[in-house]
Amino acid sequence: MEPAATLVALLHGPDQPGLVAKTASWIFARRGNILHADQHRDMEAGEFFQRIEWVPSAGSAGAEIAEFNAFAASLGMVARVASSAHRPKGALFVSRADHCFHDLLLRGVAGEFAGDFTCVISNHPDLAEAARHYGLPFHLVPVTAGDKAAAEANQLRILREVGAEFVVLARYMQVLSAEFLHALDRPVINIHHSFLPAFAGGRPYHQAHARGVKLIGASAHYATADLDEGPIIQQDVARVTHRHSVEDLIRKGRDLEKSVLAQAVRWHLENRILIYGNKTVVFD
Amino acid sequence: MEPAATLVALLHGPDQPGLVAKTASWIFARRGNILHADQHRDMEAGEFFQRIEWVPSAGSAGAEIAEFNAFAASLGMVARVASSAHRPKGALFVSRADHCFHDLLLRGVAGEFAGDFTCVISNHPDLAEAARHYGLPFHLVPVTAGDKAAAEANQLRILREVGAEFVVLARYMQVLSAEFLHALDRPVINIHHSFLPAFAGGRPYHQAHARGVKLIGASAHYATADLDEGPIIQQDVARVTHRHSVEDLIRKGRDLEKSVLAQAVRWHLENRILIYGNKTVVFD
Amino acid sequence: MEPAATLVALLHGPDQPGLVAKTASWIFARRGNILHADQHRDMEAGEFFQRIEWVPSAGSAGAEIAEFNAFAASLGMVARVASSAHRPKGALFVSRADHCFHDLLLRGVAGEFAGDFTCVISNHPDLAEAARHYGLPFHLVPVTAGDKAAAEANQLRILREVGAEFVVLARYMQVLSAEFLHALDRPVINIHHSFLPAFAGGRPYHQAHARGVKLIGASAHYATADLDEGPIIQQDVARVTHRHSVEDLIRKGRDLEKSVLAQAVRWHLENRILIYGNKTVVFD
Amino acid sequence: MEPAATLVALLHGPDQPGLVAKTASWIFARRGNILHADQHRDMEAGEFFQRIEWVPSAGSAGAEIAEFNAFAASLGMVARVASSAHRPKGALFVSRADHCFHDLLLRGVAGEFAGDFTCVISNHPDLAEAARHYGLPFHLVPVTAGDKAAAEANQLRILREVGAEFVVLARYMQVLSAEFLHALDRPVINIHHSFLPAFAGGRPYHQAHARGVKLIGASAHYATADLDEGPIIQQDVARVTHRHSVEDLIRKGRDLEKSVLAQAVRWHLENRILIYGNKTVVFD
Repeated sequence: MEPAATLVALLHGPDQPGLVAKTASWIFARRGNILHADQHRDMEAGEFFQRIEWVPSAGSAGAEIAEFNAFAASLGMVARVASSAHRPKGALFVSRADHCFHDLLLRGVAGEFAGDFTCVISNHPDLAEAARHYGLPFHLVPVTAGDKAAAEANQLRILREVGAEFVVLARYMQVLSAEFLHALDRPVINIHHSFLPAFAGGRPYHQAHARGVKLIGASAHYATADLDEGPIIQQDVARVTHRHSVEDLIRKGRDLEKSVLAQAVRWHLENRILIYGNKTVVFD
Repeated sequence: MEPAATLVALLHGPDQPGLVAKTASWIFARRGNILHADQHRDMEAGEFFQRIEWVPSAGSAGAEIAEFNAFAASLGMVARVASSAHRPKGALFVSRADHCFHDLLLRGVAGEFAGDFTCVISNHPDLAEAARHYGLPFHLVPVTAGDKAAAEANQLRILREVGAEFVVLARYMQVLSAEFLHALDRPVINIHHSFLPAFAGGRPYHQAHARGVKLIGASAHYATADLDEGPIIQQDVARVTHRHSVEDLIRKGRDLEKSVLAQAVRWHLENRILIYGNKTVVFD
Repeated sequence: MEPAATLVALLHGPDQPGLVAKTASWIFARRGNILHADQHRDMEAGEFFQRIEWVPSAGSAGAEIAEFNAFAASLGMVARVASSAHRPKGALFVSRADHCFHDLLLRGVAGEFAGDFTCVISNHPDLAEAARHYGLPFHLVPVTAGDKAAAEANQLRILREVGAEFVVLARYMQVLSAEFLHALDRPVINIHHSFLPAFAGGRPYHQAHARGVKLIGASAHYATADLDEGPIIQQDVARVTHRHSVEDLIRKGRDLEKSVLAQAVRWHLENRILIYGNKTVVFD
Repeated sequence: MEPAATLVALLHGPDQPGLVAKTASWIFARRGNILHADQHRDMEAGEFFQRIEWVPSAGSAGAEIAEFNAFAASLGMVARVASSAHRPKGALFVSRADHCFHDLLLRGVAGEFAGDFTCVISNHPDLAEAARHYGLPFHLVPVTAGDKAAAEANQLRILREVGAEFVVLARYMQVLSAEFLHALDRPVINIHHSFLPAFAGGRPYHQAHARGVKLIGASAHYATADLDEGPIIQQDVARVTHRHSVEDLIRKGRDLEKSVLAQAVRWHLENRILIYGNKTVVFD
């Protein structure tokens, strides 16, 4: 038997006494059954955060979502409610590197995600055939120095046509403009390498190798106008030694990028991530 | 300003609709302010678990604890409520090895624990001087083959005199009898090494080295009649290679034992651990 | 420019003074250039282990291999020498689970291995189409209760026809008989889950979940007559909590199995693993 | 029986054919017995690195060291040779924080280091009593804004009097001047926190918390004129979530600082670290 569809609400707002009781009582009064409820308080910011998942009693999920939103607003909270019956559609942006591309699509096939990738957009033709093998339409949108705006307009048109509800940059090697992100107005998840210390400029694995770092890392974050500086979702590191060549670092980096990005996408689709300011609360 | 004293309830019992709402509403109705509330459902066992921490309104914490317990019982739940104003007294059992001993006592001095060690009990005199340096009474209770029962009676008497509310076995090299644990009726936290695969018999680090394992581990658990098989609280591992000697494994094992045991003690004293059956739910 | 072909020797035998000097001088006298030389001594066993990689001077690599083997024998050592110009052919055994299958083949395509998978053998038809997509012949060899010997004879015939030099069991769910392993006489790398404590019997992830373990693990090892007990190559763990369902444990287990098995295969193909007794020395 | 004293040479210089053979043969010709020999080539820099440990035949270790140095120089190499019979004397610099202080001294007592701390220097009186408990002289050298040069002259005098061969900055909260480091001319090991991304300015744990990082880290390095940017010896990270307060981050940071610094000191004293340029080769 399929598990019953659930609703997941992510809400936050100024802290006040009684919030846990009020949300739980609201659901209980409507004979919903709470499966998970996780709260967090940012003591310094005086902000309350909650993820609450429940099985609604018989009735229209759509109506319950609208009513919960109104209820949350009455508490001064911002809420986002999703039904597990709805599987968000996503678009995958790639360039030439295929490791995150295959990793995400294979995990999708394995049922690891509560959403579906429905198209691939790339500035290079390399992964066209592979995308088709996964049964996905592949859109080639070249980006050249002078016509980035035109390319982004094209990307935006495609995303709207397919009704993309989220975007994953799976080693897409172009910076998305602030205008694009603003016009899209959908969450965009990105992955990039991270080092201690940080390295500016190109060829960071070469720089890390030259510096003799003992750890290399990767961070997944939501893309914002400032590309590498959006709210961090997940980070991980791998240990390296002088025995590792630059190529070894790049290979280990690929593994980190795959696992960190997949984890971020999974959490996003399970509605586990609340963004506020420039940080995230991940209810894992 | 000191933060206000809080109450922490750990409760569990058969799952039923409305539990989150009921406990939160009970606290809200008494004008308490919930700081943290974390729930868990064991779907297979149909069991509900909750840790809830709140600042009670003015009034007697003692009365509120008694009333909450009665309330939880009315819901068919078993509850344990503690006040942050109360710092539990603990006894440290040691033998000759001193790494966990120093680690725990230094962490205590650094303020990492929400409780206090108030005496040291050992079957060897080695750590007497060191215990006194930490300002702790040291009780030498030798255990010889024939008189274990007498030794345990002696230990029990000491623990009752100091009013020990928990015991930590910091590499105490004697097995405590089921009778002792039953008579004591207080939580006893133990630490031991863990390996993949497991090794029976003596000198486990030597066995692990001979087997060429690539990881060594340590597990902290509550002691039960079957010493190494009580509910697991925390586990960790360290990577080893053929370059590591048996002595290196033992040294790395000490570091694991220190950090894993300290984490378990910290969680225990913050009332984050619910035991049921032979497992734990750790609300970290 | 392609890097020059190198020779890698793995040798071991009774320790004696001068071994490092003798092997290095042998190579130097023939105007070879040592790139890496790594030694290990098992002090207890009195055994010497070495991995040495060098660029031979112009001349026949085949002749140099034969001469090095004779030289090692004259020192009382057992040697195995491989040329980087030779890429070993491997066979992949699978059943229904496809995570290690895809992971290994995609890493092969990405150039992470110093060898090539050249066929897939399975007791189930599920992965036939996927194997063909990677351009690999797929051999269905069903194994039923009564005819295991016939199936193994069939597998052996296929392996000999393709000239398989190593076998990887990528979640192949059948036990290979001691007779098969003896007749094959080629290294067989296997992957299996590992837990602290260990669990006997079926459905280990369910048992681990019921036991409340805080870590789950995976181990790659060479298959021997006693399937899960051969020399360990690599191990890794992932952290789990009560929040993780059995399905989460299985998913995390898949990730561990992929990365641990891939690491073991990479090391094997780079001639980094020396087996002696029931353990390995991994020159990483 | 005590193991025989060994010699450890760390050498590096321009790569050339035959170096492994030449060093090994030099030792063998003098009837030394090589216990460990580990080489590394930095292909890009064309540099050769070696750590070689041997039991010299009967005779003067002092003479053998001088002769080896001359031999290495004849190969165009820089060598540093140490005898395991010599335990270097170290000085511990501290301020108020005591976690690394206790950790290092307890590890010393436990025999984890191949050297000895022989004095404590601090700009605060807080740890005077604790130092005496470990049997170590405690030197209070206050550092005020205007008289740093005088304080450093004082520190230098103390270090020369005790014959300090290495210095460990165990959370010493003053920057050592380039002049001091130059005049001292002994290795100085420092520990500091590391974050992804990096945070400039004060109160880094507060900044990391505000940024919502998922990992915090610590790095041990040799101090150079540019304090936090010397050659990295070891790095490690710990995972954090939104549930962790700034105090939790600081506590976890202490644990990282302890273990990373101790590992760096251990490697240094075992002559496992070769510095060249601004990086290290760690023969672990």
